[in-house]
Amino acid sequence: MGLPKEAGFDLHSKFKAGEKNLISDVEGVSVGHKNVRGSQDIHTGVTALFPAQDNLFKNKVMAASSVINGFGKSIGLLQIDELGTIETPILLTNTLSIGTAFTALTKYMLEQNDDIGVKTGTVNCVVTECNDGTLNDIRGLHVTERDCFDALNSASVDFKEGAVGGGSGMACLGLKGGIGSASRVLNIDDKEYTIGALVMSNFGEAGNLVIGGKHYDTKLCNDKDKGSIIMIIATDIPLSERQLKRVSKRALVALARTGSFSGNGSGDIAIAFTTANRVAHYPEKAIMDLKMINDDKIDPVFQASVEAVEEAIVSSLYHAETTLGIRDNKKWGLQDFLKEFY
Amino acid sequence: MGLPKEAGFDLHSKFKAGEKNLISDVEGVSVGHKNVRGSQDIHTGVTALFPAQDNLFKNKVMAASSVINGFGKSIGLLQIDELGTIETPILLTNTLSIGTAFTALTKYMLEQNDDIGVKTGTVNCVVTECNDGTLNDIRGLHVTERDCFDALNSASVDFKEGAVGGGSGMACLGLKGGIGSASRVLNIDDKEYTIGALVMSNFGEAGNLVIGGKHYDTKLCNDKDKGSIIMIIATDIPLSERQLKRVSKRALVALARTGSFSGNGSGDIAIAFTTANRVAHYPEKAIMDLKMINDDKIDPVFQASVEAVEEAIVSSLYHAETTLGIRDNKKWGLQDFLKEFY
Amino acid sequence: MGLPKEAGFDLHSKFKAGEKNLISDVEGVSVGHKNVRGSQDIHTGVTALFPAQDNLFKNKVMAASSVINGFGKSIGLLQIDELGTIETPILLTNTLSIGTAFTALTKYMLEQNDDIGVKTGTVNCVVTECNDGTLNDIRGLHVTERDCFDALNSASVDFKEGAVGGGSGMACLGLKGGIGSASRVLNIDDKEYTIGALVMSNFGEAGNLVIGGKHYDTKLCNDKDKGSIIMIIATDIPLSERQLKRVSKRALVALARTGSFSGNGSGDIAIAFTTANRVAHYPEKAIMDLKMINDDKIDPVFQASVEAVEEAIVSSLYHAETTLGIRDNKKWGLQDFLKEFY
Amino acid sequence: MGLPKEAGFDLHSKFKAGEKNLISDVEGVSVGHKNVRGSQDIHTGVTALFPAQDNLFKNKVMAASSVINGFGKSIGLLQIDELGTIETPILLTNTLSIGTAFTALTKYMLEQNDDIGVKTGTVNCVVTECNDGTLNDIRGLHVTERDCFDALNSASVDFKEGAVGGGSGMACLGLKGGIGSASRVLNIDDKEYTIGALVMSNFGEAGNLVIGGKHYDTKLCNDKDKGSIIMIIATDIPLSERQLKRVSKRALVALARTGSFSGNGSGDIAIAFTTANRVAHYPEKAIMDLKMINDDKIDPVFQASVEAVEEAIVSSLYHAETTLGIRDNKKWGLQDFLKEFY
Repeated sequence: MGLPKEAGFDLHSKFKAGEKNLISDVEGVSVGHKNVRGSQDIHTGVTALFPAQDNLFKNKVMAASSVINGFGKSIGLLQIDELGTIETPILLTNTLSIGTAFTALTKYMLEQNDDIGVKTGTVNCVVTECNDGTLNDIRGLHVTERDCFDALNSASVDFKEGAVGGGSGMACLGLKGGIGSASRVLNIDDKEYTIGALVMSNFGEAGNLVIGGKHYDTKLCNDKDKGSIIMIIATDIPLSERQLKRVSKRALVALARTGSFSGNGSGDIAIAFTTANRVAHYPEKAIMDLKMINDDKIDPVFQASVEAVEEAIVSSLYHAETTLGIRDNKKWGLQDFLKEFY
Repeated sequence: MGLPKEAGFDLHSKFKAGEKNLISDVEGVSVGHKNVRGSQDIHTGVTALFPAQDNLFKNKVMAASSVINGFGKSIGLLQIDELGTIETPILLTNTLSIGTAFTALTKYMLEQNDDIGVKTGTVNCVVTECNDGTLNDIRGLHVTERDCFDALNSASVDFKEGAVGGGSGMACLGLKGGIGSASRVLNIDDKEYTIGALVMSNFGEAGNLVIGGKHYDTKLCNDKDKGSIIMIIATDIPLSERQLKRVSKRALVALARTGSFSGNGSGDIAIAFTTANRVAHYPEKAIMDLKMINDDKIDPVFQASVEAVEEAIVSSLYHAETTLGIRDNKKWGLQDFLKEFY
Repeated sequence: MGLPKEAGFDLHSKFKAGEKNLISDVEGVSVGHKNVRGSQDIHTGVTALFPAQDNLFKNKVMAASSVINGFGKSIGLLQIDELGTIETPILLTNTLSIGTAFTALTKYMLEQNDDIGVKTGTVNCVVTECNDGTLNDIRGLHVTERDCFDALNSASVDFKEGAVGGGSGMACLGLKGGIGSASRVLNIDDKEYTIGALVMSNFGEAGNLVIGGKHYDTKLCNDKDKGSIIMIIATDIPLSERQLKRVSKRALVALARTGSFSGNGSGDIAIAFTTANRVAHYPEKAIMDLKMINDDKIDPVFQASVEAVEEAIVSSLYHAETTLGIRDNKKWGLQDFLKEFY
Repeated sequence: MGLPKEAGFDLHSKFKAGEKNLISDVEGVSVGHKNVRGSQDIHTGVTALFPAQDNLFKNKVMAASSVINGFGKSIGLLQIDELGTIETPILLTNTLSIGTAFTALTKYMLEQNDDIGVKTGTVNCVVTECNDGTLNDIRGLHVTERDCFDALNSASVDFKEGAVGGGSGMACLGLKGGIGSASRVLNIDDKEYTIGALVMSNFGEAGNLVIGGKHYDTKLCNDKDKGSIIMIIATDIPLSERQLKRVSKRALVALARTGSFSGNGSGDIAIAFTTANRVAHYPEKAIMDLKMINDDKIDPVFQASVEAVEEAIVSSLYHAETTLGIRDNKKWGLQDFLKEFY
């Protein structure tokens, strides 16, 4: 749902939100969560994002990624950039659980495609991560393959934001972070298109939060945050891989608007894909048609993407509940924080 | 013409050459030279390559570049990679003359397009270079704007190779280098396509020459070569910008086959473009159609590109005449060298 | 001087400015301008920045660059990134004059180093640009080699900001842009270090200006800006080339803070160098010593760099005078604009 | 041991091999294998490479990587390039088992460092892969965490080459591939240094094998190879991260010498590290000393690295036994192949 009106923030947006104000406003995109919770020490989970609803391996979406700051361990980005496609759902989880998530996603793909590894090559599973060690017992490797299947199997166009799924234990700008999403609609050649963003926010130093230009002092505890953010941008606008990379690079602008300077310890990763150009795994002909926007007309795409990511970040804070985690670390949700201190 | 049969080299090629065995086998591509010669000290010049015959600024070709080793000063590559297009002819000249060549090419473009800098933005002139200082008085800056116009105005589908144009003073692998070209044809979806290459060769250490796997000892003088090579790959195969970048990266494979290890001082630059995807400067609609090859079918494109560049390099040596230059530096042409020493 | 107190802006800076609040607070750095003015149609010029005062070619500074958005034609960046050094002063001028500036800088370097092109290879001249065509007759190519020498020869630790030198005709965020500078000091291991920034600002859409989080409506004319910004970051902190690249990438954060989304037509280029690691052209030994900061301690360097670039951008607007240029295009200086409309 | 004299190949090497002619000639480097074999269908395993013998997480080695062709799923490269360090052993295994290997390596690191995820951030485990599906039941995910620990715990300066460890099921250029290694020694400033290479070879089309310039027809079966190669370069020469990246890029030259054109389906990944520059996880001071070579003296480093990788590739073929695998696919070892067909 992104930021509701009653949140009272003015992000100076130029484009209006889509119907749900979620990344799933882009047709075909769905998201599922699995929360992994136990004692006070366990706050983690998995989020699964489907770029399309048909067989992605057979019919890939066009994509690109940007490693804005590579203090990160995400899997699958190299091949996205080389081949310009995504061929699996994307999993988001904690840093040390990406091995488990990779294995689960591999099994999921193998089950659906009995040609992988036999008639054709392998599959490029995309798994992204942030370090939730401030609130979660990350050393415990609490995410299981079952949790990953559960996230995959629960994907829907309606999904929660905040301290859910992969975002369960995340911390951001001194507050509780997590999953956030938003969307924007824009007209190109008299047709309406949609851009959606989903983030898992875990970046930033306490005290640096900015919302709509206003600075907030969030220095509530003396943890030095060890950050990261995963930013996924989806659209139905026809873009080439080069253009998707340009879009993904602009995610840093959204980050900057919320107070980040892309710190050393922050794995700031952006992935952009379009459902408008699909690439067949077994093409009938070698030469295929695709569409792209003329770069001279791409500025609204950049701006709307930045707006969607920016709102998704703030939304991830807004929807997150105050959480008490391992070693009694406490992260305030933005709503509680504002009520208490502003 | 590339390498004639009587040259007697076996490059183990899998694809056959086009009609002329020149980059101009790709329809629309033409090349012009201007030799700048004076006393024994002056061996330099300019080569101009047109990717297409219509107004390139209004109707750009899709392109990408690879900086294989960036000990180089070429102009215009940043924008090729950002926007995926080439919008001017490409000039090749000596390192210190690229300022002059840039100004000349700018004037050439301004004359043909009175909208540049007024109704629209600026223009991205592409100027590439190698250091011909072993044979040429490079400090003398002997290339004039007039020389650049002459090269541009003499472009033709028939052109010379060897010690001509920008290649006049180049040295390569201990021998006389220069301009070389070759082409390959291949079938995709039952249609014939062409890949052409043009190089300005100036790389490599004396003693490292390899032709078709055979090593030649070319240690004729004790100059330490300060190298570089410009490799331009043209095709009419539909490729996206990402794919053109993949193609351009393979130029290093061709370089390696001829004995290079991409030395520190070698500006090894590759540019690839396709005439199959054109991009309008003033598009009627924002969304445009293009075509690309499925990456699963791209291997023959890689192989044929490598073969064309490899033959173009050897051809640049083969057609170059033995040259005595500044400070009595002498570089043997390959034909003279083989007659004399093999 | 950066932004004086009386300007009344709060950029939420965490680090204090250096003595001059200019890039020349970094010892060894100096800057010179040459204004090129004629009729109402001619508003251009050249700015020259010296990274050090001794022979740069013989004793290079360590450097890196980031092409944030490559709609740009700057010369010399490829080699900066390959070799990690800058070996000439940096010139800043208008887009179509970089050929002239390159030739002038080449002559300047040849005169000071008679070994270039004879005993050793060539030289990597660094020339950067923005398009001042909104206010200036850029097609006229009014910058001469003499103008470049004048800029080089007038370099000093004290220099003007605003509509001067290369910034004479620049426009930014709907207002008059130009040259801006600022600095920050910080303590590392109980020693004081300095970071300075110099920008040539020419980016952004009218209406997008943000200063310290506050949005300003600058839609005074209906020009669509064709932008660019050159951002140079200097420091005496020991950084490796990899670290300098990390610093240069953060320039986009500063850009974003002032209202940019790095538009399609904006050549957003950042160069960072350190005077703490010098590289000899003729080293006595192959192995050399250098110093770098542990990346775990680099966050203050990132933050202070972002602050210096941000203030330099706002300062470029603050010091620029309202200018009436070609085709009666008028760009308000920020001070005049604020007086008139706020 | 690399290639023994009696193998009879002339690779035209300019540098001599180290004592063992293995990557472990670089002091501190060790390698362990675990073969995973079962029925005819199971030919896989794990290889572990230690860049140094002390606590790598606390005392990292300086490193860089090159994604020559990104049809690959390796983990950890993003952070190597961002931070310039490797802080774990490197595992090499089959493509679909990298999740398991990542989890095992994570547990290995957590056990040795109880600060990870508590007092400090996470750890960047490096896991690389090739697809052994031609000979191995890759869908079976037969590699276990135990296998990974076994590989790690068996590391030694003496280790086997050929169809062992991660190389058990690999195929290369139509023959049996696997693990290969070699080394070179060179003098810099009158001191002897070592460069070592280890590869896991699985690339190339049948029929393209080249050894020392000689072409071999290896078209023994009609499999279209789905390749990849992992190339690890170790040295004790002081190099900066930028220089290590330059070295790693030259791995493609070695690949080209053995017949590769870096095909679409080949994940060609190179990692280079130096034991000469170590980076502390908990530094006493922010500013640290390091050493690098002057780039003007780096050519022998490039050449010796290319030679070591080239020999390692050929050695991987030479030491591999003829193997009959899943679906009765058979890959000849090079020695058997030459006896039978040459």
